Amino acid sequence: MTDFAATKAMFHLPEGVIYLDGNSLGPLPLAARDRIGSAMQDEWGEMLITGWNKAGWMAKPMALGDRVGQLIGAEPGHVVMGDTLSIKVYQAVASALELNPARKVVLSDNGNFPTDLYMVEGLLKSLGDGYELRVVDPEAVADNITEEIAVLMLTEVDYRTGRKHDMKALTELSHANGVLTVWDLAHSAGALPVDLAGCRADFAVGCTYKYLNGGPGAPAFIYVAPRHADAARPALSGWLGHDAPFAFDLNYRPGKGIERMRVGTPPVLQLTALEAAMDVWDMADMADVRAQSIALCDQFIEGVEAACPELTLASPRDSAVRGSQISFRFEDGYAAMQALIARGVIGDFRAPDIMRFGFTPLYIDQTDVARAVEIIADVMQNRLWDRPEYKVRAAVT
Amino acid sequence: MTDFAATKAMFHLPEGVIYLDGNSLGPLPLAARDRIGSAMQDEWGEMLITGWNKAGWMAKPMALGDRVGQLIGAEPGHVVMGDTLSIKVYQAVASALELNPARKVVLSDNGNFPTDLYMVEGLLKSLGDGYELRVVDPEAVADNITEEIAVLMLTEVDYRTGRKHDMKALTELSHANGVLTVWDLAHSAGALPVDLAGCRADFAVGCTYKYLNGGPGAPAFIYVAPRHADAARPALSGWLGHDAPFAFDLNYRPGKGIERMRVGTPPVLQLTALEAAMDVWDMADMADVRAQSIALCDQFIEGVEAACPELTLASPRDSAVRGSQISFRFEDGYAAMQALIARGVIGDFRAPDIMRFGFTPLYIDQTDVARAVEIIADVMQNRLWDRPEYKVRAAVT
Repeated sequence: MTDFAATKAMFHLPEGVIYLDGNSLGPLPLAARDRIGSAMQDEWGEMLITGWNKAGWMAKPMALGDRVGQLIGAEPGHVVMGDTLSIKVYQAVASALELNPARKVVLSDNGNFPTDLYMVEGLLKSLGDGYELRVVDPEAVADNITEEIAVLMLTEVDYRTGRKHDMKALTELSHANGVLTVWDLAHSAGALPVDLAGCRADFAVGCTYKYLNGGPGAPAFIYVAPRHADAARPALSGWLGHDAPFAFDLNYRPGKGIERMRVGTPPVLQLTALEAAMDVWDMADMADVRAQSIALCDQFIEGVEAACPELTLASPRDSAVRGSQISFRFEDGYAAMQALIARGVIGDFRAPDIMRFGFTPLYIDQTDVARAVEIIADVMQNRLWDRPEYKVRAAVT
Repeated sequence: MTDFAATKAMFHLPEGVIYLDGNSLGPLPLAARDRIGSAMQDEWGEMLITGWNKAGWMAKPMALGDRVGQLIGAEPGHVVMGDTLSIKVYQAVASALELNPARKVVLSDNGNFPTDLYMVEGLLKSLGDGYELRVVDPEAVADNITEEIAVLMLTEVDYRTGRKHDMKALTELSHANGVLTVWDLAHSAGALPVDLAGCRADFAVGCTYKYLNGGPGAPAFIYVAPRHADAARPALSGWLGHDAPFAFDLNYRPGKGIERMRVGTPPVLQLTALEAAMDVWDMADMADVRAQSIALCDQFIEGVEAACPELTLASPRDSAVRGSQISFRFEDGYAAMQALIARGVIGDFRAPDIMRFGFTPLYIDQTDVARAVEIIADVMQNRLWDRPEYKVRAAVT
């Protein structure tokens, strides 16, 4: 059984704060602070250019890819880190479309995170005539998986509501219709068990600054199923995805398997922070994390619903079809969230009316949830959100 | 007059090392080490998600873009940081091609850094029939700028030899033929004066881990001329380039001007290190840096040629057509470079036979150059490179 008191002690959590926004940016692992300090001085400072070999900088994208891969059920050697999630979406969908050349429609849903849709919109414009991005309601996805579709691109867990798609069933249905799948695991990796190999997913992408606690701007990851890895063409064909980057050939020749999905120089400082953050997972079992996440979410729903009739549950009540967050709808949700943040309960707001709270057992426990419920009840019952200063919108919400 | 002793004191330089590889990875600015420490603890640690506003994380790509822009002659508000140089090349060339839709040929030269060619090769494959990447000798570029060419993409300073293109003349010739230009400033930014606005360059891209000392994996930058900024379509259309990223619209609407070239979540830790590194430039005048760089380069050529007849100058002798590095050809250059590194003179090797040395006045002075020449002379005159251990190739050269 995972010792969650021990994992909680591995993070810096500010005094007086209950942090329910780890689904947006995970908190600082103490080891990351120390590791970055020594990477700056002992690696960059002392090794200079030789750090690429001596400190293993060049190997980090593959080594860390495997550590992330273990949490998402990927075959070893089939995940690599780099770039941002937006870029990795582009790479995955571009590759998937080429592997299914007779078709031109990408299917997604309107619960997807917008950048996934934007990137594909941009890609399809470049590809030209006939390509189409078809966006349907989440509930209508299955019915729209037809022999017309080239690629199904979905985010497994909805960023606003936490609604969770059935990856295995939708992937099977896709394959039965000759459709390839691209799964965005932004709200899955580190939040719940994922079994990419078992689901026979074709491509997957995700970020590491949420449930993996890699820090602001931590790099993304991409997975390509072994059966596609040596056939997929990386539309973003950069030198570090070349079969021999330091031969400096004039022509591109893709590297072996997932290595070809590397593009440019890896962000060593960000990878160093992420590497330290991944050590927390050596202490945690994903099945325990999932069970504890469900318990915390259920405790939160029960407490908030009992105390705050103004708040309407936006997340599924059934934990089997829910990720690791709970959202409530409230017309003045933006102001209410500011009032909560002022009282030390940090969640976030998503337009138009969603108050979002993430539950992350690695550092949030039952006592935190009980205290958060009390504070929410106080804010709502006493209309503490109804003050002008809470209604001023910040640049980043 | 720039006080180069003062700028040198702003870097950590390992004891006993003469670092002539700042053209590949700049050394650690002391301020970067301190700044990262406080960003980890006081920003990520204490502010958590609120750091995006409170610590100004979200504004860094534009703020730092302007600071880099000052060194390359860009109009204020027309440079933004993000991604890697490879990704920014893709973005720039994709946009430029769309702005010149009647033509389908991208012209470049075989002195370009390979990833630029690879990225365009990948892009043109996605764009489909009729697109062509035409790669000629550097000396043949001007003659190949014709009305058939859509985009001229060149790296101003050759990564192997330091040969420098005439940006102003080639841009003028391009415009006279209806060709748009994409300039890669990887070996220019921070190395020599660049006047993007004065040259009427259309697009420019570059990296910040070389002469700008931003650290391993520091982000790239992109410039779009004001006359194109609101017309260019970012093929990589991510949410942070959206006009209203936090409205979470389902459809993409490009942001104003250069903001649209942002893609995904910015790498805050890397940007923090770069921000500290840019402070060094508050102490330095680019004209002084250039004059001192030429003096150091000339001193090095003279010293090495006098002592080492086996080494053949690969860089232009004329400083007017040269960047801030000096390269020599030597058949056993790889082993010779390892022998030098073992003796504290760090340069690097580029296949097949190039020994490359960068001269960076911010932290390299005449005494360093004189000492480096002595050590090179010792290695060459006594064939110290001719040992088996120096011939074993590392993964990253």
